[in-house]
Amino acid sequence: SAASTPIRATLFPGDGIGPEIAESVKTIFRAAEVPIEWEEHYVGDQVDPRTQSFLTWESLESVRRNKVGLKGPMATPIGKGHRSLNLTLRKELNLYANVRPCYSLPGYKTRYDDVNLITIRENTEGEYSGLEHQVVRGVVESLKIITRQASLRVAEYAFHYAKTHGRERVSAIHKANIMQKTDGLFLKCCREVAEKYPEITYEEVVIDNCCMMLVKNPTLFDVLVMPNLYGDIISDLCAGLIGGLGLTPSCNIGEGGIALAEAVHGSAPDIAGKNLANPTALLLSAVTMLRHLELHDKADRIQDAILNTIAEGKYRTADLGGTSTTTDFTKAICDHL
Amino acid sequence: SAASTPIRATLFPGDGIGPEIAESVKTIFRAAEVPIEWEEHYVGDQVDPRTQSFLTWESLESVRRNKVGLKGPMATPIGKGHRSLNLTLRKELNLYANVRPCYSLPGYKTRYDDVNLITIRENTEGEYSGLEHQVVRGVVESLKIITRQASLRVAEYAFHYAKTHGRERVSAIHKANIMQKTDGLFLKCCREVAEKYPEITYEEVVIDNCCMMLVKNPTLFDVLVMPNLYGDIISDLCAGLIGGLGLTPSCNIGEGGIALAEAVHGSAPDIAGKNLANPTALLLSAVTMLRHLELHDKADRIQDAILNTIAEGKYRTADLGGTSTTTDFTKAICDHL
Ligand SMILES: CC(C)[C@H](C(=O)O)[C@@H](O)C(=O)O
Ligand SMILES: CC(C)[C@H](C(=O)O)[C@@H](O)C(=O)O
Repeated sequence: SAASTPIRATLFPGDGIGPEIAESVKTIFRAAEVPIEWEEHYVGDQVDPRTQSFLTWESLESVRRNKVGLKGPMATPIGKGHRSLNLTLRKELNLYANVRPCYSLPGYKTRYDDVNLITIRENTEGEYSGLEHQVVRGVVESLKIITRQASLRVAEYAFHYAKTHGRERVSAIHKANIMQKTDGLFLKCCREVAEKYPEITYEEVVIDNCCMMLVKNPTLFDVLVMPNLYGDIISDLCAGLIGGLGLTPSCNIGEGGIALAEAVHGSAPDIAGKNLANPTALLLSAVTMLRHLELHDKADRIQDAILNTIAEGKYRTADLGGTSTTTDFTKAICDHL
Repeated sequence: SAASTPIRATLFPGDGIGPEIAESVKTIFRAAEVPIEWEEHYVGDQVDPRTQSFLTWESLESVRRNKVGLKGPMATPIGKGHRSLNLTLRKELNLYANVRPCYSLPGYKTRYDDVNLITIRENTEGEYSGLEHQVVRGVVESLKIITRQASLRVAEYAFHYAKTHGRERVSAIHKANIMQKTDGLFLKCCREVAEKYPEITYEEVVIDNCCMMLVKNPTLFDVLVMPNLYGDIISDLCAGLIGGLGLTPSCNIGEGGIALAEAVHGSAPDIAGKNLANPTALLLSAVTMLRHLELHDKADRIQDAILNTIAEGKYRTADLGGTSTTTDFTKAICDHL
């Protein structure tokens, strides 16, 4: 039957600790009997000896064909002319929205215990245009590009996300008091989309004020949508509230229904291969991938097992103050399934 | 004698609660026998009936002549074509650095009790260039301009500040992995200046990572220097760590040794004229003005009285959870002098 045909998903384990934490995901997905068959490709800072490439056409095609994928951390190839592989993937796959659910993990204490918000970042333009010039010696400029098309697209995604995930409010984050044309256009698009979702409360918050409010009281926010750089800044700030990038899932949404989930932390070469890495961010990212596939039962089961393992506190990796290895922690999660 | 000649300083009380909190400063300065004679001018959103202007030539000349001033909050005049008066003052007076000391107030509890850092923001260019265009319908661009001159100037100020204020480290905040030319030039200038200050540790931190580190552990930072927009964002984030803009001083440094201290919070029209406003940000800003004048004894005495009054907790305004009026709180500070 259709239900028993496994879903093919692309896996890019990445560099450094990537292969270890990807192993953890595979183990837990097997234990939870997730009907996914991984199609694994190497993308990272090592040249493939066979293809002499960091990023093969097959790797990209795999995501395009499967429409779902999971990526680990990738180091940036050393040498002139290489841009970050993360940026390359965003561009090649037209990953227009980066979605990061950010919530306090029960039992893992930070200064905040009540965080529950979603940042949705426009992922293709803005300050990331790559257009920069020297005007004269000692005077340089970077162009921030905002388009109606990309702004509407991410706003539409944000409101649709809010509606389908039981969220009540969307806040558009901007600095339109200074960048009246660019951030002004972004807000105009958000307002247009907001009109189509009368059941969702819409507000606009200036980025400096937003950051102040976030550190004072993050419960003031629900879903945040914003241009590229603000998203970059605010999603990391939010990750900090709940413990850091090692704990926060991320998923990139592309044209044609592509979802590429990713751990946004680094490849941690210092601890690579030592069985010390914390797989939580990649695991929770894999869970967002399951939700994208509407495999909510599996997603709930795995997410609960992860959160319960962390909450219990018996098995924690070194970054969370524990002494567990990656494999011990993974086994503990399997036991909680 | 020279010592008994009062120093003339400009005072712009501003709008809304401005006049009340400015009154508080004047009262406390009188009580502490600060040898300052205020030259008061109105700048704000009300048209001066005499001059038909929001901002008179005399107001600007007063700051240029006195070289020191204090400003309260100013509302932005309503109607097309008016830019924020804050921005206008920055431009007219060439206020190239915005300095915000940010430290936990003893006895005023937030989630952080150990904040002690200084943000130094380039205040004239970057994303605030005002250069924006529509390229074609639905495609707009904003120009971020970074110059060698302004970057060196603010870097020089930051390192000099660090050295003369017993600070050990300067962190340059940037996104040069994305904006290689603009933020790259900013970093290059910081590195050049850093070479001249071997006793100060210099580091570079990417803005997203900086925000995460700040909310996790603000003690990791000492002096931060950065382009305009990052400064706008990070200084407000830092204010949030210690309680908000009502508690944080700010001082703008201009060419020719000008210092214009300012409360960066809003004019709070809802409570204006009700004797409810908290004058702390304007008071602590006035203290930074005294330090700029090297009146350190007076600065220490007033700062201690403010901090002791807040720490004691008997007299606090409503924004800090108390029931004191502005005048009660002011009187309590005078009693602590
Ligand atoms: C590594 C860097 C180019 C990237 C970005 O700026 O987008 C990272 O910070 C992220 O958030 O994925
Ligand atoms: C009011 C606004 C234009 C201003 C800025 O963006 O600089 C404010 O946020 C500040 O920090 O003084």
